Amino acid sequence: MTIVRYDINHTHDGAAASWVESANLPGADFPIQNLPFGVFRRVGSGETARVGVAIGDAVLDIAACDDRGVFTGAAAVAARACRGSALNALMALGPRQWSALRARLFELLGSGRAEEVTHREQVSPCLVAQADLELLVPADIGDYTDFYASVFHATNVGRMLRPDNPLLPNYKYVPIGYHGRASSVVASGTPVRRPLGQTRPEGADAPIFGPSRRLDYELEVGAFIGPGNGLGEVIPHDVAEAHVFGLCLVNDWSARDVQQWEYQPLGPFLAKNFATTVSPWVVTLEALAPYRVPPFERATDDPRPLPYLDGPEYRARGGIDLHLEVWILTEQMRAQGLGPHRLSRSNLRDLYWTVSQLVTHHASNGCNLRPGDLVASGTVSGPDRDGRGCLLELAWRGTEPVVLPTGETRRFLEDGDEIVLRGYCHQRGFARIGFGECRGRVVPAPGVE
Amino acid sequence: MTIVRYDINHTHDGAAASWVESANLPGADFPIQNLPFGVFRRVGSGETARVGVAIGDAVLDIAACDDRGVFTGAAAVAARACRGSALNALMALGPRQWSALRARLFELLGSGRAEEVTHREQVSPCLVAQADLELLVPADIGDYTDFYASVFHATNVGRMLRPDNPLLPNYKYVPIGYHGRASSVVASGTPVRRPLGQTRPEGADAPIFGPSRRLDYELEVGAFIGPGNGLGEVIPHDVAEAHVFGLCLVNDWSARDVQQWEYQPLGPFLAKNFATTVSPWVVTLEALAPYRVPPFERATDDPRPLPYLDGPEYRARGGIDLHLEVWILTEQMRAQGLGPHRLSRSNLRDLYWTVSQLVTHHASNGCNLRPGDLVASGTVSGPDRDGRGCLLELAWRGTEPVVLPTGETRRFLEDGDEIVLRGYCHQRGFARIGFGECRGRVVPAPGVE
Repeated sequence: MTIVRYDINHTHDGAAASWVESANLPGADFPIQNLPFGVFRRVGSGETARVGVAIGDAVLDIAACDDRGVFTGAAAVAARACRGSALNALMALGPRQWSALRARLFELLGSGRAEEVTHREQVSPCLVAQADLELLVPADIGDYTDFYASVFHATNVGRMLRPDNPLLPNYKYVPIGYHGRASSVVASGTPVRRPLGQTRPEGADAPIFGPSRRLDYELEVGAFIGPGNGLGEVIPHDVAEAHVFGLCLVNDWSARDVQQWEYQPLGPFLAKNFATTVSPWVVTLEALAPYRVPPFERATDDPRPLPYLDGPEYRARGGIDLHLEVWILTEQMRAQGLGPHRLSRSNLRDLYWTVSQLVTHHASNGCNLRPGDLVASGTVSGPDRDGRGCLLELAWRGTEPVVLPTGETRRFLEDGDEIVLRGYCHQRGFARIGFGECRGRVVPAPGVE
Repeated sequence: MTIVRYDINHTHDGAAASWVESANLPGADFPIQNLPFGVFRRVGSGETARVGVAIGDAVLDIAACDDRGVFTGAAAVAARACRGSALNALMALGPRQWSALRARLFELLGSGRAEEVTHREQVSPCLVAQADLELLVPADIGDYTDFYASVFHATNVGRMLRPDNPLLPNYKYVPIGYHGRASSVVASGTPVRRPLGQTRPEGADAPIFGPSRRLDYELEVGAFIGPGNGLGEVIPHDVAEAHVFGLCLVNDWSARDVQQWEYQPLGPFLAKNFATTVSPWVVTLEALAPYRVPPFERATDDPRPLPYLDGPEYRARGGIDLHLEVWILTEQMRAQGLGPHRLSRSNLRDLYWTVSQLVTHHASNGCNLRPGDLVASGTVSGPDRDGRGCLLELAWRGTEPVVLPTGETRRFLEDGDEIVLRGYCHQRGFARIGFGECRGRVVPAPGVE
């Protein structure tokens, strides 16, 4: 495996447009510069899921394009890997094939080219409207790992628990992470049932078992692993990004009252594993190339990363300037015909640890990462109050309730609340690209409806 | 799903014997009363893995038997589910089919029956010698969960960390668990590479990165999940055992120095996920029926389990009288021609939480368990010193080194050390049944050989 640099090539040309006209609308999440991958099925069809690429308000069916003979060379190898019902086989290939397929899709979907008429004839029969589709979890996730990479989130949570000593001594050396549950990763739009669990009410001696009363969301970003490493092998930091296929949005739903009672000494378990929602579109690292920035600036008295987590590439552009937002839509807001209300905004560049550091650290002990594994960032909070990426922080453990436009307040989530995560990149001279939405609505606990 | 009781039926007859003579030897792990399931491949053949049942020193190839038309009804349904290269499809079926297949195998392999000659003719061509086989991880493990169900282990570890307050307040209410790593679960016999990792030497300000110096094993028992539950559903305690296909031995290798530095606040991560070894044979709950005992006797001032974890079935026979042993074989012992030395012995019946409690608790928040998921017990330690199920406890954090027959001492594992776990049940009037071995040898860290 050699490192592949995604140079700012023609596929990032901010002026390029597509003959799929919805892709050219201002503010569109899926212009031709994005081309994120996902897995879809016609609503209610029961048919086998298929791999597609989002363009405007449509999806291009990759296997159908391949049937029409539009791919050659490395692009054809990649397209062949899209014939299954998940992205794992494509993810397993690596940057050369990913890039070749992306470049060819850019040609096929571009407007103003000499071959445009031919290309339209070739692939327009392979376009399907997103409105007709059900979008699924994009990969068969073998293992799901969740990190804790935002120093602002870790500090906020630490302040609530240990006001004098919020950040533990390991935080600035170790990218702290834990294993999540792969079975309960669900697609955007899947209802999230309020979990039952053991909690110990304030002042009580013994716990009770019942619906969580402190349900929360967590704004996160997930990385889907590409080729990965064999057991006992490591992933050196300078090639780590060749093992990342792309990113999605992740909502790591959390039952704070369950978490508080169960988490010592082995960490979160039932407080987190009842549901994790992922957005359907995986934005490739190559599409994100124009939005790369230096990593989070550590304080002068912070330690340097240990050598296995450091390098010139990391220092130059380890960060990703990805804007993130959390929106809420309550029953009352729906009843009043209101749209979602923004709760917070933050940015992936504010993570203390970069994606490549998370991947390298994860494999540093020889733990094998497999194609399609999901590695999430942990809650992405920013330095300011409006950058707090979960309700626990926003409402400061319930002590500062959030006021909504309806006059309602929220300490934690209520039944019927829908949480929508959004993400996008924009940079002068480049097209804005978006991640689409990661959506989930809370439904009542079993036996409570 | 209705509860299925494994009554003490003819397949548990302690006097029954097999025409596979090695199954009848005293002390054999795999007499006809056991019939554990596994997955095998001829050594070096590269052929697709196949499902088999251990009998004496042989393995019966189930698909090959099915080709010969020896199964009907529910047994045939189960045999058909054994045509893949993992046990997942069989596990997904449920107790009725499992039991029917087991009963038919008991007939086919039994001696002294009128049909014995016919049966031998039918299935003896489907027997292969275990010596010629590579035994694999028996299921495609979607998620691996590890509990902390031994109060003796939890108390010992707690005493080292918090002498005044060893057991946290949640322990006797919550079956504490965390998610492990599915990708690095390996078959018995797979070498275990000493991991690299961050550790902070005693008294140092900053951590270093290098080979773990406190490598340990953990003696555990794992349960493979059967049909399981859908997301948002629960598994009531009185039917939990219908969702357990069977048990195996598990060695949850641990790097204690890495664990100590990384584990707060989210629990063990790289300290555990470099390798977990499982034994190849899954002993069904039905085979274990004669060895069921009341659950661990709680102290009079211990709380009763909360109602969702309690019930008459649990109180009558929630425990399993499974003897467990840990053996070590060092380089020096090998050089001197010595056999393995026993380090400890304990019993699964000493777990504070039963297998059905672990399963019910895991699904109590709607977390979906899938066929083939592995749910491990955590280190099984007993009340006495020789029941300590890991070196951390046995050598009391390095302060009481273990002395081996060669005069060598061990605080933690050294390169070349091989750990062998064994398990067996015996009970007057019933055959002894064994779990076979769970084996792994420590090899040097990368770059250290």
